[in-house]
Amino acid sequence: MYEGPIQDLIDELAKQPGLGPKGAQRIAFSLLAGEKSDIDRLVAALQRVRDDVTFCSECGNVSANPRCRICSDARRDATKICVVEEPKDVNAIERTKEFAGRYHVLGGALDPLSGIGPDQLRIRELLRRLGNQEDGIDVTEVIVATDPNTEGEATATYLLRMLKDFPGLAVTRLASGLPMGGDLEFADELTLGRALSGRRALA
Amino acid sequence: MYEGPIQDLIDELAKQPGLGPKGAQRIAFSLLAGEKSDIDRLVAALQRVRDDVTFCSECGNVSANPRCRICSDARRDATKICVVEEPKDVNAIERTKEFAGRYHVLGGALDPLSGIGPDQLRIRELLRRLGNQEDGIDVTEVIVATDPNTEGEATATYLLRMLKDFPGLAVTRLASGLPMGGDLEFADELTLGRALSGRRALA
Repeated sequence: MYEGPIQDLIDELAKQPGLGPKGAQRIAFSLLAGEKSDIDRLVAALQRVRDDVTFCSECGNVSANPRCRICSDARRDATKICVVEEPKDVNAIERTKEFAGRYHVLGGALDPLSGIGPDQLRIRELLRRLGNQEDGIDVTEVIVATDPNTEGEATATYLLRMLKDFPGLAVTRLASGLPMGGDLEFADELTLGRALSGRRALA
Repeated sequence: MYEGPIQDLIDELAKQPGLGPKGAQRIAFSLLAGEKSDIDRLVAALQRVRDDVTFCSECGNVSANPRCRICSDARRDATKICVVEEPKDVNAIERTKEFAGRYHVLGGALDPLSGIGPDQLRIRELLRRLGNQEDGIDVTEVIVATDPNTEGEATATYLLRMLKDFPGLAVTRLASGLPMGGDLEFADELTLGRALSGRRALA
Protein backbone atom coordinates (compact mmCIF):
# COMPACT_ATOMS: atom_id res chain seq x y z
CA MET A 1 0.00 0.00 0.00
CA TYR A 2 2.78 2.43 0.98
CA GLU A 3 6.05 2.73 -0.87
CA GLY A 4 8.53 -0.11 -0.34
CA PRO A 5 10.49 0.61 2.85
CA ILE A 6 7.52 2.14 4.69
CA GLN A 7 5.26 -0.82 3.95
CA ASP A 8 8.07 -3.22 4.90
CA LEU A 9 8.42 -1.55 8.30
CA ILE A 10 4.66 -1.58 8.85
CA ASP A 11 4.60 -5.29 7.95
CA GLU A 12 7.44 -6.10 10.36
CA LEU A 13 5.83 -4.11 13.17
CA ALA A 14 2.44 -5.69 12.53
CA LYS A 15 3.95 -9.12 13.26
CA GLN A 16 4.53 -8.10 16.88
CA PRO A 17 1.98 -9.28 19.45
CA GLY A 18 -0.69 -6.72 20.27
CA LEU A 19 0.02 -4.67 17.15
CA GLY A 20 -2.30 -4.86 14.17
CA PRO A 21 -1.83 -3.05 10.85
CA LYS A 22 -3.31 0.17 12.31
CA GLY A 23 -1.04 0.23 15.34
CA ALA A 24 1.97 -0.67 13.20
CA GLN A 25 1.15 2.14 10.78
CA ARG A 26 0.83 4.59 13.64
CA ILE A 27 4.27 3.68 15.00
CA ALA A 28 5.88 3.72 11.54
CA PHE A 29 4.59 7.23 10.84
CA SER A 30 5.57 8.44 14.26
CA LEU A 31 9.11 7.17 13.58
CA LEU A 32 9.08 8.82 10.16
CA ALA A 33 7.94 12.12 11.63
CA GLY A 34 10.47 12.03 14.48
CA GLU A 35 14.21 12.45 14.59
CA LYS A 36 16.44 9.92 12.88
CA SER A 37 18.19 9.52 16.22
CA ASP A 38 14.98 8.03 17.68
CA ILE A 39 15.14 5.28 15.07
CA ASP A 40 18.83 4.83 15.85
CA ARG A 41 18.13 4.34 19.53
CA LEU A 42 15.44 1.74 18.82
CA VAL A 43 17.75 -0.05 16.38
CA ALA A 44 20.58 -0.05 18.90
CA ALA A 45 18.30 -1.43 21.63
CA LEU A 46 17.13 -4.22 19.33
CA GLN A 47 20.69 -5.08 18.32
CA ARG A 48 21.84 -5.16 21.91
CA VAL A 49 19.02 -7.53 22.83
CA ARG A 50 19.86 -9.70 19.84
CA ASP A 51 23.58 -9.82 20.66
CA ASP A 52 23.80 -9.62 24.43
CA VAL A 53 20.74 -11.27 25.90
CA THR A 54 20.99 -14.92 26.67
CA PHE A 55 19.38 -17.32 29.12
CA CYS A 56 20.70 -17.91 32.61
CA SER A 57 22.35 -21.33 32.70
CA GLU A 58 20.87 -21.97 36.12
CA CYS A 59 17.31 -20.66 36.23
CA GLY A 60 16.59 -20.14 32.52
CA ASN A 61 15.57 -16.52 32.96
CA VAL A 62 16.60 -14.00 30.33
CA SER A 63 19.86 -12.39 31.30
CA ALA A 64 22.65 -10.21 30.00
CA ASN A 65 25.14 -12.65 31.54
CA PRO A 66 25.59 -16.44 31.52
CA ARG A 67 24.28 -16.36 35.09
CA CYS A 68 21.44 -13.95 35.83
CA ARG A 69 21.39 -11.20 38.43
CA ILE A 70 19.30 -13.19 40.88
CA CYS A 71 21.22 -16.49 40.60
CA SER A 72 24.52 -14.68 41.12
CA ASP A 73 23.22 -12.76 44.13
CA ALA A 74 24.56 -14.61 47.19
CA ARG A 75 22.05 -12.85 49.43
CA ARG A 76 19.14 -14.64 47.76
CA ASP A 77 17.91 -17.66 49.73
CA ALA A 78 19.04 -20.73 47.77
CA THR A 79 16.86 -23.11 49.78
CA LYS A 80 13.68 -21.84 48.06
CA ILE A 81 13.01 -22.10 44.35
CA CYS A 82 9.97 -20.44 42.82
CA VAL A 83 8.99 -22.13 39.55
CA VAL A 84 7.34 -19.85 36.97
CA GLU A 85 6.31 -20.17 33.35
CA GLU A 86 7.89 -17.08 31.79
CA PRO A 87 10.61 -14.51 32.52
CA LYS A 88 7.97 -11.82 33.00
CA ASP A 89 6.50 -13.88 35.85
CA VAL A 90 9.84 -13.51 37.67
CA ASN A 91 9.42 -9.79 37.36
CA ALA A 92 5.83 -9.91 38.63
CA ILE A 93 6.91 -11.77 41.76
CA GLU A 94 9.96 -9.55 42.27
CA ARG A 95 7.63 -6.54 42.29
CA THR A 96 5.82 -7.93 45.35
CA LYS A 97 9.11 -7.79 47.32
CA GLU A 98 7.75 -10.80 49.25
CA PHE A 99 10.14 -13.43 47.94
CA ALA A 100 13.87 -13.58 48.61
CA GLY A 101 14.63 -17.00 47.11
CA ARG A 102 15.69 -18.13 43.64
CA TYR A 103 13.66 -18.83 40.51
CA HIS A 104 13.30 -21.45 37.84
CA VAL A 105 11.77 -20.47 34.50
CA LEU A 106 10.05 -23.35 32.70
CA GLY A 107 9.61 -21.54 29.40
CA GLY A 108 5.87 -22.22 29.25
CA ALA A 109 3.29 -24.64 30.59
CA LEU A 110 2.17 -28.13 29.63
CA ASP A 111 -0.18 -27.92 26.67
CA PRO A 112 -0.35 -31.23 24.79
CA LEU A 113 -2.69 -29.81 22.13
CA SER A 114 0.02 -27.32 21.14
CA GLY A 115 2.68 -30.02 21.34
CA ILE A 116 4.19 -28.76 24.58
CA GLY A 117 5.05 -31.74 26.78
CA PRO A 118 7.47 -32.04 29.70
CA ASP A 119 10.43 -32.26 27.32
CA GLN A 120 9.66 -28.85 25.85
CA LEU A 121 9.83 -27.25 29.30
CA ARG A 122 12.89 -26.85 31.50
CA ILE A 123 11.69 -29.54 33.91
CA ARG A 124 14.73 -31.79 33.51
CA GLU A 125 16.92 -28.80 34.41
CA LEU A 126 14.85 -28.27 37.57
CA LEU A 127 15.27 -31.91 38.63
CA ARG A 128 19.00 -31.67 37.94
CA ARG A 129 19.16 -28.51 40.06
CA LEU A 130 17.42 -30.27 42.93
CA GLY A 131 19.52 -33.43 42.49
CA ASN A 132 23.06 -32.09 42.40
CA GLN A 133 23.11 -29.52 45.12
CA GLU A 134 26.83 -29.10 44.63
CA ASP A 135 26.95 -25.85 46.55
CA GLY A 136 26.08 -27.76 49.71
CA ILE A 137 22.74 -25.99 50.12
CA ASP A 138 19.67 -28.20 50.16
CA VAL A 139 16.56 -26.84 48.52
CA THR A 140 13.78 -27.19 51.09
CA GLU A 141 10.86 -25.67 49.21
CA VAL A 142 9.70 -25.48 45.62
CA ILE A 143 6.93 -22.94 45.15
CA VAL A 144 4.97 -23.74 42.02
CA ALA A 145 3.87 -20.37 40.65
CA THR A 146 2.48 -21.39 37.28
CA ASP A 147 -0.60 -19.53 36.04
CA PRO A 148 -3.97 -20.42 37.63
CA ASN A 149 -5.41 -21.74 34.36
CA THR A 150 -5.78 -25.18 32.78
CA GLU A 151 -2.20 -25.39 31.47
CA GLY A 152 -0.67 -23.94 34.62
CA GLU A 153 -2.66 -26.29 36.86
CA ALA A 154 -1.68 -29.31 34.74
CA THR A 155 1.96 -28.25 34.97
CA ALA A 156 1.67 -27.86 38.74
CA THR A 157 0.16 -31.34 39.08
CA TYR A 158 2.90 -32.83 36.92
CA LEU A 159 5.62 -31.09 38.91
CA LEU A 160 4.14 -32.27 42.19
CA ARG A 161 4.29 -35.86 40.91
CA MET A 162 7.92 -35.45 39.85
CA LEU A 163 9.02 -33.73 43.05
CA LYS A 164 7.15 -35.59 45.77
CA ASP A 165 9.90 -38.20 46.18
CA PHE A 166 12.66 -35.71 46.92
CA PRO A 167 13.46 -36.17 50.61
CA GLY A 168 12.84 -33.17 52.80
CA LEU A 169 11.39 -31.07 49.97
CA ALA A 170 8.12 -29.18 50.44
CA VAL A 171 6.21 -28.44 47.23
CA THR A 172 3.79 -25.54 47.57
CA ARG A 173 1.46 -23.71 45.22
CA LEU A 174 0.48 -20.03 45.13
CA ALA A 175 -2.87 -19.47 46.84
CA SER A 176 -5.93 -19.09 44.66
CA GLY A 177 -8.75 -16.88 45.87
CA LEU A 178 -10.34 -13.48 45.63
CA PRO A 179 -8.12 -10.75 44.21
CA MET A 180 -7.41 -7.97 46.71
CA GLY A 181 -9.55 -4.91 46.14
CA GLY A 182 -12.04 -7.10 44.35
CA ASP A 183 -15.71 -7.55 44.96
CA LEU A 184 -17.12 -10.87 46.18
CA GLU A 185 -20.29 -10.37 44.20
CA PHE A 186 -18.44 -10.14 40.91
CA ALA A 187 -16.03 -13.04 41.46
CA ASP A 188 -16.52 -15.98 39.09
CA GLU A 189 -17.67 -19.30 40.58
CA LEU A 190 -14.29 -20.98 40.13
CA THR A 191 -12.40 -18.24 41.95
CA LEU A 192 -14.98 -18.03 44.72
CA GLY A 193 -14.94 -21.81 45.07
CA ARG A 194 -11.17 -21.78 45.39
CA ALA A 195 -11.33 -18.96 47.93
CA LEU A 196 -13.80 -21.01 49.96
CA SER A 197 -11.89 -24.28 49.86
CA GLY A 198 -8.65 -22.45 50.63
CA ARG A 199 -10.11 -20.52 53.61
CA ARG A 200 -7.79 -19.85 56.48
CA ALA A 201 -8.26 -19.45 60.23
CA LEU A 202 -8.31 -15.78 61.25
CA ALA A 203 -5.19 -15.24 63.31
CA MET B 1 13.38 -3.66 36.37
CA TYR B 2 14.81 -6.13 33.87
CA GLU B 3 18.50 -6.51 33.15
CA GLY B 4 20.10 -3.71 31.10
CA PRO B 5 19.51 -4.46 27.43
CA ILE B 6 16.02 -5.91 27.95
CA GLN B 7 14.83 -2.93 29.96
CA ASP B 8 16.39 -0.58 27.41
CA LEU B 9 14.43 -2.21 24.61
CA ILE B 10 11.20 -2.10 26.63
CA ASP B 11 11.81 1.59 27.31
CA GLU B 12 12.41 2.37 23.64
CA LEU B 13 9.34 0.42 22.57
CA ALA B 14 7.19 2.06 25.24
CA LYS B 15 7.93 5.46 23.67
CA GLN B 16 6.01 4.48 20.54
CA PRO B 17 2.42 5.70 20.24
CA GLY B 18 -0.19 3.20 21.36
CA LEU B 19 2.34 1.12 23.30
CA GLY B 20 2.52 1.33 27.07
CA PRO B 21 5.00 -0.51 29.32
CA LYS B 22 2.87 -3.70 29.19
CA GLY B 23 2.62 -3.76 25.42
CA ALA B 24 6.31 -2.94 25.08
CA GLN B 25 7.21 -5.76 27.47
CA ARG B 26 5.06 -8.18 25.52
CA ILE B 27 6.80 -7.33 22.26
CA ALA B 28 10.28 -7.43 23.83
CA PHE B 29 9.70 -10.91 25.23
CA SER B 30 8.19 -12.12 22.00
CA LEU B 31 11.34 -10.92 20.21
CA LEU B 32 13.51 -12.61 22.85
CA ALA B 33 11.63 -15.88 22.49
CA GLY B 34 11.70 -15.81 18.69
CA GLU B 35 14.45 -16.30 16.16
CA LYS B 36 17.32 -13.83 16.00
CA SER B 37 16.49 -13.44 12.32
CA ASP B 38 13.14 -11.87 13.29
CA ILE B 39 15.00 -9.14 15.14
CA ASP B 40 17.31 -8.76 12.15
CA ARG B 41 14.39 -8.24 9.80
CA LEU B 42 12.88 -5.59 12.07
CA VAL B 43 16.24 -3.85 12.43
CA ALA B 44 16.76 -3.91 8.66
CA ALA B 45 13.29 -2.46 8.05
CA LEU B 46 13.95 0.34 10.54
CA GLN B 47 17.32 1.12 9.00
CA ARG B 48 15.86 1.22 5.51
CA VAL B 49 13.17 3.65 6.63
CA ARG B 50 15.80 5.78 8.34
CA ASP B 51 18.10 5.82 5.30
CA ASP B 52 15.80 5.63 2.28
CA VAL B 53 12.56 7.37 3.15
CA THR B 54 12.32 11.02 2.35
CA PHE B 55 9.54 13.45 1.52
CA CYS B 56 8.29 14.04 -2.00
CA SER B 57 9.56 17.44 -3.15
CA GLU B 58 6.23 18.16 -4.79
CA CYS B 59 3.42 16.91 -2.54
CA GLY B 60 5.28 16.37 0.74
CA ASN B 61 4.13 12.77 1.08
CA VAL B 62 6.59 10.22 2.44
CA SER B 63 8.39 8.54 -0.41
CA ALA B 64 11.33 6.31 -1.23
CA ASN B 65 12.26 8.70 -4.05
CA PRO B 66 12.67 12.48 -4.35
CA ARG B 67 9.36 12.45 -6.21
CA CYS B 68 6.65 10.10 -4.92
CA ARG B 69 4.88 7.38 -6.84
CA ILE B 70 1.73 9.45 -7.35
CA CYS B 71 3.44 12.69 -8.40
CA SER B 72 5.57 10.83 -10.91
CA ASP B 73 2.58 8.97 -12.37
CA ALA B 74 1.64 10.82 -15.58
CA ARG B 75 -1.77 9.14 -15.63
CA ARG B 76 -2.85 10.98 -12.46
CA ASP B 77 -4.99 14.05 -13.17
CA ALA B 78 -2.79 17.05 -12.43
CA THR B 79 -5.72 19.50 -12.55
CA LYS B 80 -7.03 18.28 -9.17
CA ILE B 81 -5.11 18.53 -5.91
CA CYS B 82 -6.44 16.91 -2.75
CA VAL B 83 -5.03 18.60 0.36
CA VAL B 84 -4.65 16.31 3.39
CA GLU B 85 -3.07 16.62 6.82
CA GLU B 86 -0.92 13.49 6.97
CA PRO B 87 0.62 10.87 4.67
CA LYS B 88 -1.76 8.25 6.03
CA ASP B 89 -4.68 10.35 4.80
CA VAL B 90 -3.33 9.94 1.26
CA ASN B 91 -3.54 6.23 1.78
CA ALA B 92 -7.08 6.44 3.15
CA ILE B 93 -8.26 8.31 0.08
CA GLU B 94 -6.35 6.03 -2.29
CA ARG B 95 -8.18 3.07 -0.79
CA THR B 96 -11.52 4.54 -1.92
CA LYS B 97 -10.31 4.35 -5.56
CA GLU B 98 -12.52 7.39 -6.15
CA PHE B 99 -9.81 9.97 -6.72
CA ALA B 100 -7.40 10.02 -9.65
CA GLY B 101 -5.78 13.41 -9.04
CA ARG B 102 -2.70 14.49 -7.09
CA TYR B 103 -2.18 15.20 -3.39
CA HIS B 104 -0.67 17.79 -1.15
CA VAL B 105 0.33 16.81 2.38
CA LEU B 106 0.27 19.70 4.85
CA GLY B 107 2.04 17.87 7.64
CA GLY B 108 -0.65 18.62 10.22
CA ALA B 109 -3.45 21.10 10.86
CA LEU B 110 -3.59 24.60 12.31
CA ASP B 111 -3.44 24.38 16.09
CA PRO B 112 -2.28 27.67 17.61
CA LEU B 113 -2.36 26.29 21.16
CA SER B 114 0.29 23.73 20.18
CA GLY B 115 2.24 26.39 18.27
CA ILE B 116 1.25 25.13 14.83
CA GLY B 117 0.51 28.10 12.62
CA PRO B 118 0.45 28.41 8.81
CA ASP B 119 4.27 28.55 8.66
CA GLN B 120 4.55 25.13 10.31
CA LEU B 121 2.41 23.57 7.58
CA ARG B 122 3.28 23.13 3.91
CA ILE B 123 0.85 25.87 2.85
CA ARG B 124 3.47 28.04 1.13
CA GLU B 125 4.47 25.02 -0.95
CA LEU B 126 0.85 24.58 -1.99
CA LEU B 127 0.54 28.22 -3.08
CA ARG B 128 3.80 27.89 -5.01
CA ARG B 129 2.49 24.75 -6.70
CA LEU B 130 -0.66 26.58 -7.75
CA GLY B 131 1.26 29.68 -8.78
CA ASN B 132 3.96 28.29 -11.02
CA GLN B 133 2.15 25.78 -13.13
CA GLU B 134 5.25 25.28 -15.22
CA ASP B 135 4.06 22.03 -16.72
CA GLY B 136 1.37 23.94 -18.57
CA ILE B 137 -1.46 22.26 -16.68
CA ASP B 138 -3.75 24.54 -14.71
CA VAL B 139 -5.04 23.22 -11.41
CA THR B 140 -8.81 23.66 -11.57
CA GLU B 141 -9.84 22.20 -8.21
CA VAL B 142 -8.37 21.98 -4.75
CA ILE B 143 -10.22 19.48 -2.56
CA VAL B 144 -9.66 20.30 1.10
CA ALA B 145 -9.66 16.92 2.86
CA THR B 146 -8.51 17.96 6.33
CA ASP B 147 -10.06 16.13 9.29
CA PRO B 148 -13.63 17.11 10.26
CA ASN B 149 -12.57 18.41 13.68
CA THR B 150 -11.74 21.85 15.12
CA GLU B 151 -8.17 21.98 13.78
CA GLY B 152 -9.10 20.53 10.40
CA GLU B 153 -12.01 22.94 9.98
CA ALA B 154 -9.82 25.90 10.93
CA THR B 155 -7.24 24.78 8.39
CA ALA B 156 -9.92 24.43 5.71
CA THR B 157 -11.22 27.95 6.44
CA TYR B 158 -7.70 29.37 6.29
CA LEU B 159 -6.97 27.58 3.01
CA LEU B 160 -10.20 28.84 1.47
CA ARG B 161 -9.18 32.40 2.32
CA MET B 162 -5.74 31.92 0.76
CA LEU B 163 -7.05 30.21 -2.38
CA LYS B 164 -10.20 32.13 -3.22
CA ASP B 165 -8.33 34.67 -5.36
CA PHE B 166 -6.74 32.15 -7.70
CA PRO B 167 -8.53 32.62 -11.04
CA GLY B 168 -10.51 29.65 -12.27
CA LEU B 169 -9.82 27.56 -9.17
CA ALA B 170 -12.63 25.76 -7.38
CA VAL B 171 -12.01 25.04 -3.70
CA THR B 172 -14.12 22.18 -2.36
CA ARG B 173 -14.40 20.37 0.95
CA LEU B 174 -15.17 16.72 1.67
CA ALA B 175 -18.84 16.25 2.58
CA SER B 176 -19.74 15.91 6.24
CA GLY B 177 -22.72 13.77 7.14
CA LEU B 178 -23.86 10.43 8.38
CA PRO B 179 -21.33 7.63 8.03
CA MET B 180 -22.48 4.85 5.69
CA GLY B 181 -23.85 1.85 7.53
CA GLY B 182 -24.50 4.10 10.52
CA ASP B 183 -27.67 4.64 12.46
CA LEU B 184 -29.46 8.00 12.40
CA GLU B 185 -30.59 7.57 15.98
CA PHE B 186 -27.04 7.26 17.29
CA ALA B 187 -25.48 10.09 15.28
CA ASP B 188 -24.27 13.03 17.36
CA GLU B 189 -26.01 16.38 16.94
CA LEU B 190 -23.12 17.97 15.07
CA THR B 191 -22.93 15.20 12.50
CA LEU B 192 -26.70 15.07 12.07
CA GLY B 193 -26.81 18.87 11.75
CA ARG B 194 -24.14 18.73 9.05
CA ALA B 195 -25.99 15.96 7.25
CA LEU B 196 -29.13 18.08 7.29
CA SER B 197 -27.52 21.30 6.10
CA GLY B 198 -25.63 19.40 3.40
CA ARG B 199 -28.69 17.54 2.13
CA ARG B 200 -28.85 16.86 -1.59
CA ALA B 201 -31.67 16.53 -4.11
CA LEU B 202 -32.45 12.91 -4.84
CA ALA B 203 -31.45 12.33 -8.43
